[in-house]
Amino acid sequence: MSFTAAFAPVDAVCTEVTTPLPVLGRDVRVPLVTGGEVTYAALDYAASAPALQRVWDDIAAYAPYYGSVHRGAGHLSQLSTELYEQSRQAVAEFLGCREGDQVVFTRATTDSLNLLSAALPQGTRVFVFETEHHASLLPWRSHEVTYLDAPRSPEQAVATLESALHGAPAGPKLVCVTGASNVTGEVWPVRELARAAHRHGARLVLDAAQLAPHRPVKLTELEADWVAFSGHKLYAPFGAGVLAGRADWLRQAEPYLAGGGASRRVARTADGGVEVEWHTTAARHEAGSPNVIGAYAIASACRTLTEAGFDRLVAREEELLTRLRTGLAAVPEVKVLSLFGEGADQVGVLSFVVEGWNSSHFAAALSAEYGIGVRDGLFCAHPLLRTLLGRQGDTPGECGAPEAAPGERSLNAVRVSFGAGTPDDHIDRFVAAVQELVREGARWNYRTEDGRCVPQAPERAVD
Amino acid sequence: MSFTAAFAPVDAVCTEVTTPLPVLGRDVRVPLVTGGEVTYAALDYAASAPALQRVWDDIAAYAPYYGSVHRGAGHLSQLSTELYEQSRQAVAEFLGCREGDQVVFTRATTDSLNLLSAALPQGTRVFVFETEHHASLLPWRSHEVTYLDAPRSPEQAVATLESALHGAPAGPKLVCVTGASNVTGEVWPVRELARAAHRHGARLVLDAAQLAPHRPVKLTELEADWVAFSGHKLYAPFGAGVLAGRADWLRQAEPYLAGGGASRRVARTADGGVEVEWHTTAARHEAGSPNVIGAYAIASACRTLTEAGFDRLVAREEELLTRLRTGLAAVPEVKVLSLFGEGADQVGVLSFVVEGWNSSHFAAALSAEYGIGVRDGLFCAHPLLRTLLGRQGDTPGECGAPEAAPGERSLNAVRVSFGAGTPDDHIDRFVAAVQELVREGARWNYRTEDGRCVPQAPERAVD
Repeated sequence: MSFTAAFAPVDAVCTEVTTPLPVLGRDVRVPLVTGGEVTYAALDYAASAPALQRVWDDIAAYAPYYGSVHRGAGHLSQLSTELYEQSRQAVAEFLGCREGDQVVFTRATTDSLNLLSAALPQGTRVFVFETEHHASLLPWRSHEVTYLDAPRSPEQAVATLESALHGAPAGPKLVCVTGASNVTGEVWPVRELARAAHRHGARLVLDAAQLAPHRPVKLTELEADWVAFSGHKLYAPFGAGVLAGRADWLRQAEPYLAGGGASRRVARTADGGVEVEWHTTAARHEAGSPNVIGAYAIASACRTLTEAGFDRLVAREEELLTRLRTGLAAVPEVKVLSLFGEGADQVGVLSFVVEGWNSSHFAAALSAEYGIGVRDGLFCAHPLLRTLLGRQGDTPGECGAPEAAPGERSLNAVRVSFGAGTPDDHIDRFVAAVQELVREGARWNYRTEDGRCVPQAPERAVD
Repeated sequence: MSFTAAFAPVDAVCTEVTTPLPVLGRDVRVPLVTGGEVTYAALDYAASAPALQRVWDDIAAYAPYYGSVHRGAGHLSQLSTELYEQSRQAVAEFLGCREGDQVVFTRATTDSLNLLSAALPQGTRVFVFETEHHASLLPWRSHEVTYLDAPRSPEQAVATLESALHGAPAGPKLVCVTGASNVTGEVWPVRELARAAHRHGARLVLDAAQLAPHRPVKLTELEADWVAFSGHKLYAPFGAGVLAGRADWLRQAEPYLAGGGASRRVARTADGGVEVEWHTTAARHEAGSPNVIGAYAIASACRTLTEAGFDRLVAREEELLTRLRTGLAAVPEVKVLSLFGEGADQVGVLSFVVEGWNSSHFAAALSAEYGIGVRDGLFCAHPLLRTLLGRQGDTPGECGAPEAAPGERSLNAVRVSFGAGTPDDHIDRFVAAVQELVREGARWNYRTEDGRCVPQAPERAVD
């Protein structure tokens, strides 16, 4: 392994991009309770997407050259430091950052939004729709928060925000909004919301956890002040995420984490205390050794998606989505959840309930009998689910999958989600499985035990 | 790739452990400014250690089976969730956790200590020696902090703490102490300090960032209340760290990050607000999708070190340390930094200054002319360095490497550090290089530019 031949991004010259993009795990086979095994269909991309093969290859090529980032004097430290800062630059380009914007590496979207919350000026009033994922709904609780009711169209979302901002007192204001719902996949009118925010002197942070893997996210075009996303949903599951955007509030805030890397100078004071001078760059909020592998993985994913061409990826995803929606429309028992209704712009995320079925049992049957991995529950968006399911009251269990009482409507839903690594046949298999399950019922029985669905062979069910 | 043949730890049956333990990058060759190339000698383990080959192999075997952790219904989600929780269990065993202790996965030590700081009961008074790394010195600043002067022996450390605690007012108290100094490598009397803390009703958190890679760390034996460490110093550089210990304060505290995963139930309230019920398990402080690869990497490293036998690793490290110290002792110009003096217990971390040399230039020459990677600077422990270098006043630059004015004493130091992956000949090469550099001087010239040392060919130096 020569340093001079050296480490470089794999496949840097990529003349022909094949779709689906190759991902890890594409050949993994899983057993079925009914016997035999099948290739696993990963349809839970909205929770965590598989790593792109190229991301993995880049990481594998770099790993032997891993060294301490910042201030190490050795070759590998210098290479690693450069790689880390180049990764920051690659992310800035991917996000269309403006001059002066900062890119802070965090652990994930949740961390990014908690960081921004900690950096808000005193007295900031936050506006957030109740339809948000808990990661964008809850981090603001140390501030004054106005929760906005679920809108039923993109236009209503803008009008609701306008009206709330109109009546708000003077002072700093922040709007936090999702780019694409983690439940319905519906795309939110980010630019229009940002413009509304700016008209009223507010700023806007975009939760792009679900949008960035599916659509180009450019701060300049969307006019958002900040954007947050996660590596593990962007085909780069190595413990890193991003907060990018305007530097002023970040620079003025107390460091998110206190420690080395964030501090420029630390000294004892005459009265026995300690005084600190903090950095004003992105390092201010990145105390501790940077996760260079996680950051490089994100940069590699950004590059891969850009080279593949987002137009092509979006067009292909829309084809698959049409195929999925058409297939489900043929099953009257399946009710797709939607906030904005027919014709809404949507990424490859879709939730539904099935009449007569407990959603958890339905998801468990898809796994056990068909080797298809989806998600069931409330998707860390409890208020939204309550609105979509038209149900008030209690919802036990985080992303919970409680037993529905006999005859009671399912308390949760099934979510199917996919992306750039999904082959056509996973969607076809999914549609066929849903149709068969609804038509013929599950072959095994499903019971909830300790919050988990356990398949039971039909013979044993009569014990 | 069959699920049933499936994913399992690589080399699970390990009858013969060879030392040094195989690490990534052991064959990497780097160019020398003087021509040719050599195998890189990574001697900056105290900043970031290379990944153990087995950790990498475990990660590579798992990566295709990566799936969304928690509540995914598919096979790979269930496998990933189990792996994550098994990793937590493996870490608990590695640390000798007591019944009821919690293991929280964080991003690194800095994050772990910031988490604990955020979880301290109101009114907690914190006691910390000025000799700590900034990661353990600075996170407590929102509390009342008593900074203790640098002790000059382990006994004096205990006496200093006793005396400070003796005069402290009633109320919750926390002592934060390092297990092994990131500058001198000297081992601190953790159990004695913990006993002193407990005698005065205080609790103790151990910063084991530098200790855990070198010595067994058992909460039961050290009698510490919590311990924090980082994956990237424990041969598992995948963005994860650990805080482990007593559950009570963690359970009562506000969640460290607000978001999904930490919340059990979220609902709108009648007055338009939002109410949250948080988990009381480790999940309370782990909002967001868990970094399962990072956590599994740490678990794999814990298992590998345990299987290799810490006794053997410690014995081998002590041999190398003796060889290093003996080699440096033969160079009168080299002054090794020490707080506790001759005969102090020490791990494989050692800092020094060289008479007549700027430490940054010395470190740069080791890299450029010998392919040896060490570190120079103040090692994110400014007050300690000031004490060790016997110098008061300003120290510009975080871990800074400022130019020394002509005739002025070096403002920083060189640190060499190693571990379980270091072959004997890296130590021998290092000692020979130090001896040669001091005897014959560097062959190239070194200049500091934008805080970085740049080698200059001797011909060009006369331009």
